Amino acid sequence: MKSKTVCELCDQVGGTLLWQDASCRVVLVEDADYPGFCRVIWKKHVKEMTDLSADDRAHLMATVFAVEAAIREAMRPDKINLASLGNLTPHLHWHVIPRHAHDKHFPQPVWGAAQREGAPILPPGWQVGLKECVRSRLPG
Amino acid sequence: MKSKTVCELCDQVGGTLLWQDASCRVVLVEDADYPGFCRVIWKKHVKEMTDLSADDRAHLMATVFAVEAAIREAMRPDKINLASLGNLTPHLHWHVIPRHAHDKHFPQPVWGAAQREGAPILPPGWQVGLKECVRSRLPG
Repeated sequence: MKSKTVCELCDQVGGTLLWQDASCRVVLVEDADYPGFCRVIWKKHVKEMTDLSADDRAHLMATVFAVEAAIREAMRPDKINLASLGNLTPHLHWHVIPRHAHDKHFPQPVWGAAQREGAPILPPGWQVGLKECVRSRLPG
Repeated sequence: MKSKTVCELCDQVGGTLLWQDASCRVVLVEDADYPGFCRVIWKKHVKEMTDLSADDRAHLMATVFAVEAAIREAMRPDKINLASLGNLTPHLHWHVIPRHAHDKHFPQPVWGAAQREGAPILPPGWQVGLKECVRSRLPG
């Protein structure tokens, strides 16, 4: 009997798919407190950025920065937070999080202590806008 | 009277200097729970990665990944955590954090809830080793 390693990001898309190519995908995360929260997920099961080749690293980061630019355009946040953690799911993925001065945790990281109830700011038609902004900045 | 914008990373080195060039510096952060925690700080006061030129972004990320590789070599962590947040200090800086399965917050982010007392793992001579590993991977 073959043993099976379970990895959430190998088995599942991980959100609403906004864009993908052969190497990576961009998904919109369902998070009521953080509309516009995206993840950029490397398709192969790789643990650390320095396990990728320099070309693959550059490709993944170019995708992350395209998503950052798209979120800034579509969501007009006060700050962008970027993180590659993977302690629970050691499969390369980047969090790209729009932060607003009155969101639930600001100025703490979204993983820190809540500061208030938080009132997500939603530009009209943001879901369509964000998808268009992401796609317009990435090939294909 | 001129008004003065106070920025901690414009005014201070931000840790023990391990390496620098004209654009950025690498510092070792004093954190008793996370020996080997480094920051890569862009020297100019810039808020977001997408405010940098593509060349500057590539230069900063190459430095971040050199530090990641150095920390992996010197500290042998179970995972690397990378993050650019800047909610409190909106001056580009990357956290490069060695994580161990039995550290204070694992598998939570270091900004999350503590899981235990934590027992930092210190390879013999780690401070000298880390400095040498950082410098050997960066020019000059």
